[in-house]
Parts: sequence; structure tokens; C-alpha cells
Amino acid sequence: MHRPRSAVPSSTLSAPAEQRGTPTGPVRQGPDAKAALAPATAEVRGGFWETRRTVNAHTSIPQGPGLLESAGNLQNLRIAAGTAEGEFQGGYPFVDSDVYKWLEAASWQLAQGTPESDSGLAADVERVVSLVAGAQQPDGYLNTWFHLLKGGERYKDLRWGHELYCAGHLIQAAVAHHRATGGSELLDVAVKFADQIDSVFGLPESGRPIDGIDGHPEIETALVELYRETGERRYLDLAGYFVDRFGHGLLGGEAYCQDRVPLREAIDVEGHAVRQLYLLAAAADLATETGDAELRAAAERLWAAMTATKTHITGGLGAHHDEEDFGDPYELPNERAYCETCAAIASVQWSWRMALLTGEARYSDLIERTLYNGFLAGVSLDGESWLYVNPLQVRDGHTDPGGDQSARRTRWFRCACCPPNVMRLLASLEHYLASGDAGGLQIHQYATGRYTAGDITVRCETDYPWQGSIGVTVEKAPSDRPWTLSLRVPQWCSEYRVRCGDTVYDQSDAPVTDGWLRLERTWAPGDRIVLELALEPRLTAADPRVDAVRGCVAIERGPLVYCLEQADHPGGGLDDIVLDTTRPLTVEHRPDLLGGVTTVVAAGHRRHIPDAGWWPYRTADTADIPPAGGPVELTAIPYYAWANRQDGSMRVWLPTS
Amino acid sequence: MHRPRSAVPSSTLSAPAEQRGTPTGPVRQGPDAKAALAPATAEVRGGFWETRRTVNAHTSIPQGPGLLESAGNLQNLRIAAGTAEGEFQGGYPFVDSDVYKWLEAASWQLAQGTPESDSGLAADVERVVSLVAGAQQPDGYLNTWFHLLKGGERYKDLRWGHELYCAGHLIQAAVAHHRATGGSELLDVAVKFADQIDSVFGLPESGRPIDGIDGHPEIETALVELYRETGERRYLDLAGYFVDRFGHGLLGGEAYCQDRVPLREAIDVEGHAVRQLYLLAAAADLATETGDAELRAAAERLWAAMTATKTHITGGLGAHHDEEDFGDPYELPNERAYCETCAAIASVQWSWRMALLTGEARYSDLIERTLYNGFLAGVSLDGESWLYVNPLQVRDGHTDPGGDQSARRTRWFRCACCPPNVMRLLASLEHYLASGDAGGLQIHQYATGRYTAGDITVRCETDYPWQGSIGVTVEKAPSDRPWTLSLRVPQWCSEYRVRCGDTVYDQSDAPVTDGWLRLERTWAPGDRIVLELALEPRLTAADPRVDAVRGCVAIERGPLVYCLEQADHPGGGLDDIVLDTTRPLTVEHRPDLLGGVTTVVAAGHRRHIPDAGWWPYRTADTADIPPAGGPVELTAIPYYAWANRQDGSMRVWLPTS
Repeated sequence: MHRPRSAVPSSTLSAPAEQRGTPTGPVRQGPDAKAALAPATAEVRGGFWETRRTVNAHTSIPQGPGLLESAGNLQNLRIAAGTAEGEFQGGYPFVDSDVYKWLEAASWQLAQGTPESDSGLAADVERVVSLVAGAQQPDGYLNTWFHLLKGGERYKDLRWGHELYCAGHLIQAAVAHHRATGGSELLDVAVKFADQIDSVFGLPESGRPIDGIDGHPEIETALVELYRETGERRYLDLAGYFVDRFGHGLLGGEAYCQDRVPLREAIDVEGHAVRQLYLLAAAADLATETGDAELRAAAERLWAAMTATKTHITGGLGAHHDEEDFGDPYELPNERAYCETCAAIASVQWSWRMALLTGEARYSDLIERTLYNGFLAGVSLDGESWLYVNPLQVRDGHTDPGGDQSARRTRWFRCACCPPNVMRLLASLEHYLASGDAGGLQIHQYATGRYTAGDITVRCETDYPWQGSIGVTVEKAPSDRPWTLSLRVPQWCSEYRVRCGDTVYDQSDAPVTDGWLRLERTWAPGDRIVLELALEPRLTAADPRVDAVRGCVAIERGPLVYCLEQADHPGGGLDDIVLDTTRPLTVEHRPDLLGGVTTVVAAGHRRHIPDAGWWPYRTADTADIPPAGGPVELTAIPYYAWANRQDGSMRVWLPTS
Repeated sequence: MHRPRSAVPSSTLSAPAEQRGTPTGPVRQGPDAKAALAPATAEVRGGFWETRRTVNAHTSIPQGPGLLESAGNLQNLRIAAGTAEGEFQGGYPFVDSDVYKWLEAASWQLAQGTPESDSGLAADVERVVSLVAGAQQPDGYLNTWFHLLKGGERYKDLRWGHELYCAGHLIQAAVAHHRATGGSELLDVAVKFADQIDSVFGLPESGRPIDGIDGHPEIETALVELYRETGERRYLDLAGYFVDRFGHGLLGGEAYCQDRVPLREAIDVEGHAVRQLYLLAAAADLATETGDAELRAAAERLWAAMTATKTHITGGLGAHHDEEDFGDPYELPNERAYCETCAAIASVQWSWRMALLTGEARYSDLIERTLYNGFLAGVSLDGESWLYVNPLQVRDGHTDPGGDQSARRTRWFRCACCPPNVMRLLASLEHYLASGDAGGLQIHQYATGRYTAGDITVRCETDYPWQGSIGVTVEKAPSDRPWTLSLRVPQWCSEYRVRCGDTVYDQSDAPVTDGWLRLERTWAPGDRIVLELALEPRLTAADPRVDAVRGCVAIERGPLVYCLEQADHPGGGLDDIVLDTTRPLTVEHRPDLLGGVTTVVAAGHRRHIPDAGWWPYRTADTADIPPAGGPVELTAIPYYAWANRQDGSMRVWLPTS
């Protein structure tokens, strides 16, 4: 085996242009892209994610049209088209986007080519596309809220109106539909709308009437993707114009919508989390396509600030219910963690663009953490109900009527942004797993499947995240040159070994450089590599400035964050539980539990809490020496699987004394 | 000296009817009231509260009309009266109530009879009363939002409209104006409106058309007070009807507005904090006037639940920004503590009614804590700016544009409920300090002033809360019978002594019973009692279920909660500070600082925080042993005085390791 090659500054790497197109994925790159890596062609067949994606394909996505019908979204399109009568339904100006996100999800699903459910799905897609096309106005504009409720007045309420936001989701759906089916019906609608927008928005000197941006970023990434799909440079330029007009007071100058400071000057993420993240994904896209070093530096700077001070251990983002906002640095509450499911998705989208742009593994570290925890908790195991917010604690006696910002799973939301967003990420998940460059192929996430970059194809087999063994078999490889198989060794992993053929290396002789284990040789079909990541459960503490978890630890195993749920602890709540850190953690795989999970069992006790009378604050001396209560065995389940049984309390962070 | 008499169950006590009228106070009692205690007649002359009240009288209250003019509230009245033209201003349906609360505050201020500013104030009051009267419609209805914006449509949006809420504040203002000035111009307006409301609302079988309640309780206490002022029993009955119709789904059944469960069945406070508290104040009023034991039991039960599990150490109430809501039990965040100033005021109003109803000292314990901390922080030392929310922590690097829900003092709010609410409580504060019953006089709060109950008058002199010595001199007393001077020994106080003439008693021979030190003898004018409360600064810990403050203590001294402010700790922030609990606390009175405060100085150090890279979570083993950073002297100031210097970080709860 060749020694892993020494670190090459990632900015000098670049993927060849012919690798940049992923026929059925959401982040294609243009022919002049300046990214270190290009997305690989991938398929997932088996393992953890296949199970989740099957539920998505067989339950969640097929239910979309019915839910969009009952919520009124589809009827709005008919009324706008003049084929039905009635009043606008839905209460929000952005309800069209729910339709578009579902269309995007369904399109990525169609691209899988799995026959069993596709004929019905293809018909549903065709039907909904027709509704969308029918609602478009002759000049290309399309928004049922403004058309039906606002007398057709356009672009007068950019702060709240979500017109360009909806247009962005329409464009993304159209690109997905085109890539998946080859059909142009929806792409034509999107192009026509994009051209209408392009004729209206621009700097004053451009001769176009409106110098403005949408209060909710989204169209920016969409326009870059439309450029990638059509080759039309105007869309890329318009995206760049939009991104750079934030921070100049066009929206009133508020941090809430990233209008306080230009992105290029910002030193921290702020305001509404999803808005900030979509905008940063666009910055990464623009830096990818144009090589804009200043934009890239801003995105790198903000990503580092966000992860170091504003990210929950689950990868969840957004500390405030109020305004769905990032909080202050280290303000990471548990019971009131907002961690909107859409923010987790936006984080994955942004981080993947950064991973490709820079070639750095840390971005995929965050993607892994987010996918397995903060994101996946957003959908129930049966694919039928959802969490909009993803708290890290539910207290004993918590009362909750359900609904949009609830800690209880809900069938559909009044503001239904998250469910179709989950659907589209799950349906396109394979495109976030691997990449290629001129030097070889990189596996970012470990899922059973097949990955192709240029003339290299490898097959991956694993029971990850339950088992730490990942087998990679070379299926296709150039016979005339060495290339590098890069395996990401996760940031959480402190011990691993790798077997290439009959030789086993550990971290001393196969070291990780910047998160990558790089194995270079002239690989031949049939060559097999097995990476073994040690999956000992571990106790994790936070930076001491995270006040919310002082004196607590979290249980983690591999990429999974664990939690206690009341269902596993009959006879009491969770608010008085203390973990004994001196006793070993043990694991048990439970195929019967929650679709099959590995649990972590720990020792603890219930705290003896003296009767405090009517006032819960006492002189510190006496409060500091509470005697221990009775022992209790603590059974931790993966956080993603919580809230799939009866209502009850839950906690990720466990007091240790 | 007679031994303090043994505890008499407070429910057997009752104040004689002739003591129940406080000529100029906000909580009079009707002739048949079933309360243990009746409010005393009181005046505050000197000391801590006189200083705060002088600022209120000389700065805050006089600025009211100008601020209400510039915010449009007064112009709305003119437009409704037809004496001006224009559009409704203010953006909220409850803006009339700001005018009424100011009128109530100004009326209580006029009742003080302090000549220096009253001629201008009286003229302002007269002018604003005329505007209110002019806006009333012929049948008594008065609400500028519905009159100007909703085409005069009435009582169709009880969930959000605040019509009865505004009416309640009008009634309270009218009662205050009548008690203070004897004039009936505003009372006539209120009575006419109350009669209009009484003709409309009632149970279906009453023959009145609407079975409904207002989404924001307020009219209920107001109607009880109007009954007390006019003797008209219909108002009391209507208040009882309103209180009992909550919890039956008339507002949609949401906990937010206390409509999930009837008050008589509730086991915990829930929903919007101010709404819940105003409703409970009304329950206490009704139990007082009618002797309704079930309502009283509900109020007692909910007060105990609230204080034990949902009250911040400052007395602040309401854990959520979102919906201004009580959170779950023990959910008491620091940086996102909502603790609306209005909730602190409502808590004082409710607790005072409970103190009078039951005779129990714990209600006044909470009043003291709230007045000196959670309430008083709501207004700046100069009386010119305000806090709507009262967090217990502001982080290093906190960015804040100011405004309604900000941690920065603001000149006036878009939703300006809190400032005039502070004004009215400060202007009527003397009525919350002392009471009388058939057996004597009770001093609940220690302020320099004079207190009269029946034929007993005492004078109180004290530098409280800076000094623990309280001198009480009997000025007037019956010569023919013994009576009891009851002094509340605060719940925080673990050591005290009392001198009666030349004899000194400590807690062993003058014990406290249920919070009261009861001194019974045949007192004579000139008799002097000195109560000495030990004011050693102390470290306070919370119930371990209050996750937000695990591993932290708060500094308290007497009734004051202390905090660290960045202004006193140059050269660094507060997020990395650790208190050394083994070193003594020292106090220093600083007449130059923040209007004169006693500071508490403690030893601490800055925490050494290793560079965590991009991810702030680490394996617990290594995270548990951070070396100490440099020592730092910590200077704590009273919480009420925070945010009166430059912007910066602040914290009440201090980590200890």
C-alpha cells in the first residue's frame, strides 16, 4: 500500500469539468466552476438510509398531493388559473412554495427509477405541474397570494411577500423535474418567470425598475442552479446581484433578514436562521461558479463562527422561537431550542456546497451530524408526521397542543415548509455522499451504495451507524494511473483502522490529514478496503460558555446523539435524573425497538429533592449537598427516533451531579 | 412586653368594615368583604421608595401626555370624537388602554397632594379626561380601534380585540380619578360604558345577547372595583360571570388565554402571563367580596404552583418570548427570561389581594421580591426609559436593536403597556405596604412613612433595603385595649432581633409565626419598636430542576437580587467568569453609583477556555478539568439598577466551577 499522500492544499485541487454534471442531483456545477470537488454520481441501495428513503418514497411523498389539496394549496392554483372559484386558502403568502418543494421531492424520487410506486407518482407530478403552468400569468409572473388577494400587485412587499422566495422554489422544482424526467414543461414555466424577474430587478443603472431583494433568500441558489441547467449567464448575474444587495437597508436594515450588514463584511450569522443559511448557500454557489474569493472567505468565516458558537450538538440551528432566530454566541437552550427542521436542511445544503468548494472534510462532518440528528428527527419513523422545531429537552409535565412550533409530532403544519423540505432532501440524499476530483474519489458519508466519479466506481457496504465497519470495493478504475480513495474519518472518531487487502493499518501508520484518510495506489477492480471506526459510546461536554448545559453531558455513539425518553423510564419523569459518569456505558442493539436501534445503557439515580415549600431558591450551603435518591438504569435512544411513542419528557443533556 | 401571641388561623380574622375603605388607593374592599385584612391608609415620606416615586412624579408621569400625543393615542380619541381628521394610529387594538393607564397613574399622583407639580398635572388630567369623554359614543361604548378601523363593529373579535380589556383600564382610571379628585367626569364615562357592557354580556338565559369574555382579562378586577366605588352589585355579578366563563372554549379553548380549563379546576398557571395574573387578581377580588371558598382555594393553589415552579428569583414571571407565556415547571431561562414588566405588576396586584384575603405573609414576601427586583428594573433610574422584558442575563457580544422585547432600555414602546403600568404602581405604591384588622396593624413592606388602620397610626423610619434597621413609632393608639403590631419578617431573613423600649428580643424569644412577628400590648403614643433584620449578603442556589442555573449561585442581600454588569468589569466580558464560593462576600455602600447603591464584592476568576476549533463539544473527560484563568474581583450591583450605563453584558446567576 502506498502511504497516504501528504496534504495538498485543497484550493489547488479542482475537479475536471466533465465530472461536474450530476445528471439527477440538486447541486450541479457549471463548466467554469472553481470548486475543489465535483459531486459524484451515486445511488443508495440498502442500509440505514435506504430504510428512511423507502418510507419517504412509499409514504411521505405519495401523501403530498392529498395534503396539499386539503390545505388548499392546489385549489389556489386552480383559482388563479380561472378553472375554479373560491377564496385564497392557507393564510401565508408562501403557500405556493409547499407545492414546489413537493414537486422537487417527487422529481428527485422519480429520478430513482424505482418502478413500484412511480407510475402513480409520475401521474401526480404531471397533474400538479399542469396546475402550476395553468396559474402562470402571460408575462411569466406566478404567485397566487398576490394574484388572488392583492389584486395582482407585484413586488410591493418584498419584505414579507415571499414572491421571489416562491419563485426560487419553483425554479428548483423545475430544475429537478427537468433533470429527473427530461421534460421541459415545468422548466419552461420557471424560465419564463425567471426572465420576468430578470427584466424587473437590477441596480438602478441597469435600466430595470426595481432595486430590491426578497426578505427570504431562496431565489439566489435557485438562479445559480437555473444557470447551471440552462447555461444562461443572466441568471448567475442576477443571483450575484441579489446576494450583494443584502445589508444595504433595502429591507429596512434588520438583522432578522440579513439586511443589517453586507454578507461580505459579516462576521457572524444572525437573524432568521433559514434565511441566513439559504443566503449563505447562494454565496457558496456564487463563489463556486465565479471564483469570487471574498464571497468564499465570508462563507468560510461565517460557517466557522456558526459551528463554534451557535450550533446545537444535534446540528440544530436557531435558538429562538421568537423570530426563528439565531441567538447570541453560546446561547443554546434545550427545551426552547428552535432548531427548525428547515434550518437543518439548509445547513446541509450550504455545507455540501462548502465541502465541494473547498474540499475540506469538516463541512461533511457537520452534514453527518445534522443528517443523523437534527434533520432526521424532523420526520416520524412512519413518515406520516413531523416536527417543525426540534428541542433537546421536553420537561416532565410539559403541556403541548401540537402544531407548528410544538414538541409533539403533527400531521401537517399551517406553515408547512418543513415536511416537503424533508421529502426533497431524503429523495436526493445520495447526491450529498461522495465527490470526485482529478485525483480520485472521496466518500463523505457512509451509506451502502455505489459511487462514480469519472472513470472510477466504488461500491460501499456498511451497517453504519450501528456498526463502524465500512467496506469499499473498487468496481471500476483506470488501469494506467494511481488515484486516491479518500475516506472521511469523522471528527467524533478518535480511533480507527483500515484494511487494504491483507494489510491492516491504524492511525499511526495511516494518519488522517484534515479529516481525510487518503489512500493512493493504482487500484484495480475487486480491490477491497475496510475502514473500521471505533464506535464506543462516549460522554460529551460543551464549551463552558454554553450555560444551558453546565454540569451536564450528552451520550453519543458514532454520529448519533442520544437522548432519554420517558417511555423507557416508567415510574418517574426525567427532570430529577442524574447520570453516574463513573459507571461504564453499555450498548445493546434492539431490532424490535423504534425500527431497530442500538441503545446505550447507563447508570444513574433519581435526585432526592427536599420539599422547598413555595419558594424554589435556597441558601447555597444547604442546597449543595442533596443526598442521592434511588438508582435507576438509564436507557438512551438515538435522538432522531424520539417522539415516536407516547407523549412524554425527553432530554439530551444529562446532569452529572 | 407581652409574648407574641400564638398563631391565630388567619381565616378567622377579619377587618372591621369601617377600615375597608382606603380613600385614595387601588384596592378598596366592599362593606361585606370576607378578607382577613383591610388595606391601611398610608403615605410614604422619605427613604428608598420616595426617591423612586419622586422620579415617577417629576419625570415619568409628566412625560406621559407628550408621549401619548406623539404615538397617536390622543389623536385617535380626537378623531373618534370628530374633532380631528386622520387615520387611526398605533397598530394595536389596545392603544386606548395606554391613555387610561396613564390617567390612572396621574390620578394616584394627584391623590398624593404634593403641590410642586400638581397644577400642571391636574390640567393635563382634565384635558385628557375631556378627550376620553368626547370619544365616547352615545350609548356608552368607547374604543377607537373598532370605531375608526372596524366600522364600529363591536364585540365580534373578543379573542383579539381587547375591547373589554380597554374598558377595564378605563374603569380603573375612572375609579382612581374619582378617589383622587372627587370629580365624576371620568367615572360617569366609565359607568355608562360598564352599563352598556352589562346590557350586552351574560349567560344566554339572561336575555343579554353575548355569552363571551375578552381574550385579555382586565375588566374583571375593574368591575369589582367599580362595584366597590359605586355600590352597584351588578358590576360585581358581571365580573363573576366573566371569570367563570374562562375555560369553556368561548375563546377557542387555548391555554394562551386561560380558556383551556375553568379557573376553579386549574392546577397550574399557564398561557400568557399577564392575562393569567389579571384573571387571578379578579378571582381574589371575587373571593374577597363574596366569600367564594372554591375561588379562593383555586387562587391559593395556583399561587403556590406558580411561585414554586415558574417564578424567577427576581419575581419575574413568564419564561417565553413567544406568546409571552408561562413555560413549563422549572423552565426558567436566563437570557431569554421574558419577565414582562407588566407581569411583575400584575403579580403584585394579585399577591396583595391574596395577602389581604388570607392574612398570610408569604404573599407579601413575593411582593417585596418583585417590587425590588423584577418590577423596578422595568424603569430606568432617571424615569425616562423602560424595559418591557427583564432578562437575567445578557451575553457578551449581544446585539440588540432596542424596542419592545429588547434587553436595552427604550424611550417608549410600540406596544406601550408597561411604562404607564409602572407609573400607576409607583404612584399608588403606599397602598401595598400595610393593613389593619380587628386585632391591630400589619406592616407588610418597610418604607419610611405613616400607616393608619382604624384608630391606630404608626410611623416607620428606615434606610431599608440598604440597612436592616426599621424603627416603628406609635403615634396614635387606643388607650383602652391591647392590640397587635405585626411586622413581616421576610422569607429571606434567617436572623433578626427586635427592641421594644429598652428590651431586646431575638428570634428565640420573639419567634415568627407564619412570617409575622406579632407584638401585642397596650401600646401608647411614643412607644418605639426597632426591628433589626440581618443583611449579610448570601449566595442562593435554585431547585436542581431549574436546569438553566445548574452549577450557579446568585448573590442576594436582603430583598435585593444582585447581578454583575460589564461596566464594572473592564477588560473582559462576563461569559467566562467563575465565582469563588469559598471567599467572603463584602459590601460597600456607594452613594456615587447608580443613585446610591450597596454593592457586593466577591472573588472570582476568568475561566481558561481552550481553543475548541470549529466544534464546541468535546469528550467529557478532557472538558472536565479546565485550569483556572486569572483572578478577578467581581462587583455586584442590585439587579434593579442594571442597564443604566453603557450597553454590555449582565448576569444574575454566576457559575461556581
